Amino acid sequence: MPDAKIIVIGDEILSGRTQDTNSYYLTHRLNELGINPNRIITIGDNGIVIEQVTKDAMSQADLIFICGGLGPTPDDHTIISVANVLNKKLVLDDSILKRVEQYFSSQGRVVPELATKQALIPQGAIVLDNPVGHAPGLIIKHGKKVMILLPGVTHELQRIFETGVIPFLSDTYLLKSDITLLIRTTSIPEMEIVNKINGVLKKYKHIQVAFLPSILGVDIKVSRIKDKKTCHSIDKDIKTVLKPCIYGYGQETIEQVVGILLHKKQLTLGVAESCTGGLVADKISNVAGSSEYFIGGAVVYSNKLKKMVTGVKDSTLRKFGAVSKETVLEMASGIRERFSTDIGISVSGIAGPTGATKDKPIGLVYIGIATKKGAKHEQYHFTGNRRMIKEKSAMAALDLLRRTIEVLS
Amino acid sequence: MPDAKIIVIGDEILSGRTQDTNSYYLTHRLNELGINPNRIITIGDNGIVIEQVTKDAMSQADLIFICGGLGPTPDDHTIISVANVLNKKLVLDDSILKRVEQYFSSQGRVVPELATKQALIPQGAIVLDNPVGHAPGLIIKHGKKVMILLPGVTHELQRIFETGVIPFLSDTYLLKSDITLLIRTTSIPEMEIVNKINGVLKKYKHIQVAFLPSILGVDIKVSRIKDKKTCHSIDKDIKTVLKPCIYGYGQETIEQVVGILLHKKQLTLGVAESCTGGLVADKISNVAGSSEYFIGGAVVYSNKLKKMVTGVKDSTLRKFGAVSKETVLEMASGIRERFSTDIGISVSGIAGPTGATKDKPIGLVYIGIATKKGAKHEQYHFTGNRRMIKEKSAMAALDLLRRTIEVLS
Repeated sequence: MPDAKIIVIGDEILSGRTQDTNSYYLTHRLNELGINPNRIITIGDNGIVIEQVTKDAMSQADLIFICGGLGPTPDDHTIISVANVLNKKLVLDDSILKRVEQYFSSQGRVVPELATKQALIPQGAIVLDNPVGHAPGLIIKHGKKVMILLPGVTHELQRIFETGVIPFLSDTYLLKSDITLLIRTTSIPEMEIVNKINGVLKKYKHIQVAFLPSILGVDIKVSRIKDKKTCHSIDKDIKTVLKPCIYGYGQETIEQVVGILLHKKQLTLGVAESCTGGLVADKISNVAGSSEYFIGGAVVYSNKLKKMVTGVKDSTLRKFGAVSKETVLEMASGIRERFSTDIGISVSGIAGPTGATKDKPIGLVYIGIATKKGAKHEQYHFTGNRRMIKEKSAMAALDLLRRTIEVLS
Repeated sequence: MPDAKIIVIGDEILSGRTQDTNSYYLTHRLNELGINPNRIITIGDNGIVIEQVTKDAMSQADLIFICGGLGPTPDDHTIISVANVLNKKLVLDDSILKRVEQYFSSQGRVVPELATKQALIPQGAIVLDNPVGHAPGLIIKHGKKVMILLPGVTHELQRIFETGVIPFLSDTYLLKSDITLLIRTTSIPEMEIVNKINGVLKKYKHIQVAFLPSILGVDIKVSRIKDKKTCHSIDKDIKTVLKPCIYGYGQETIEQVVGILLHKKQLTLGVAESCTGGLVADKISNVAGSSEYFIGGAVVYSNKLKKMVTGVKDSTLRKFGAVSKETVLEMASGIRERFSTDIGISVSGIAGPTGATKDKPIGLVYIGIATKKGAKHEQYHFTGNRRMIKEKSAMAALDLLRRTIEVLS
């Protein structure tokens, strides 16, 4: 495997304005491919420094990734600096120029003079197509050394890496990867997972287990699995101890899983949200094709709308308040009935920082769900700031939806 | 100001298991204090490499932060490596030993032998108390050079930085920061900003201008401004060429700006969304206190709901389709009327990847807005994947809202 280094370029990173997520993505993906970068160097948009760091990296590493500074503005220096280090001329690439022109004309705009600068690349560089932006990726071979230049915009970098860089790395370094199993869980603490899993995984030698917690749940990553049969067996063993908390695999999101279930069971969904403010509907509608089962949602922020749109009784609001099991039950049943859906789900809670009372602290959230079998509710106490409580509430709503649909005939 | 560098140590970062958030935190805080780190170097838990990188940093920088590898386990090498580079003896620090003993006894546990290793520090180091963990921070002065060692656990690093490091830096470097002006723009391409701004900013010497683009807009960062008067003058000059595209300053989000405007003008808001699926409402409700002006929203994903909830006419949908100026105009007016709000805003578009027709490509989005002065609409052509089109549409809706409220009496 090649000795790899990553150079990240951007004043916005050194100034603490933007968090660099590109090096995290690259290290993660490269390790999965069996390539272990041994250094990340982050520097600013300064041509002299870029040249110096590139020169150093060239003398130490075989494979160098350079991210950022590929744009056409005066503070983008990467291409010129790399060309200087490698002593290569800049030439105009017709294919890039054409793409840039197409990009602007598709938007009905004239190509700015600056933009044509993006078509200047070091002689001999391999151009990697960027279908989601206009700075292409570049691969430059120099003797046995390989330099890969990627734009700093995260989704552009990721797209080019997946479609252009991986095939190149696979060919060049004959990559073969072990199997990695990624199991996604929610509503169970990391410690409990560790305790439950350690026993059942003891019998597997040489595997590597990592726990990746986020505010929405814990992913379990089992890597270095030698074959499919072992992978299947590990999956089965983990399921025996964690089944109800597992919602998906790999990059699957809970809204995708919910979407697959709704599609398979031919069920439609309506959402009534208060404290999540549209986040549940937003997540559900992130799934392509969700219009097939997602009829719509109501963000009933005011009590007036809770009554008007979801039919919550005035007496319920007066007696129990907007944040109560009674209100979410009526919201869920009401939205199901009025939107004529198979399932209605509702959320009401106190996201903070204001709105708490003695009996109802920040983080208290009720979720209701109504199906043909009737309505039920769950109560939660979440911690964190306003956004975190919204995120955790939406996750809990989607997970309650998943568990409910799974057993719905 | 000292020339500063950050060294981040941890195999878990190079393997892509853990995202390094410490360097983001440090760069952000240091820049606020007027110290601009010019390099971040991330390396693994390898004593030889740590020594080499530390030695290099010593020859280049005056102030060096080293994060991680301070623990007591065999893969923690930082303290020994630094002591080697500085040619200092390791000595047992009684105060640290006492703290470690207290930490374990408070948990009813015996001090593991390994843990006492944490009390070994380079002779002469200043110990920074760690009230939330047991690896202390260390400041080591070496001639004019200063080395600051911090634990890799994020909340421990942050606590020590705030309580121990900042007072030290303030004393040592007599911190006083230049002014930085951050202006947030949207709906104008980076290149157009560059062209418009370069002229008006020519007269200011020594300032530094950077453009920070994201999919939602471009932030303009003007730093090294010497005084408030100059800052005010630069702001005024930028406004003369960019005014309508500027929505805020610093960390302000557009939903905060919209919230401030709605509050100031005592206006209420209702939202009707199709392709954004709740994202506009979600953003608006991220603002604490938004329930004061945000009455609620409707996610009218199906045509049935567009008619039922927002009152779009059947004939409009049949004649012009759900993605049309006619539909968003009726949605905006309908939600305003039915929710009895001062303003109604609506979004309908094709987020993809399916749903496009010959006349209506992916990325075609209409936004409508209704006020007491009547309803108007805007048409957009966005690029990107489903999520990006949703994000860009929500941003455009919030920006149209901002521009409309600004001139509303």
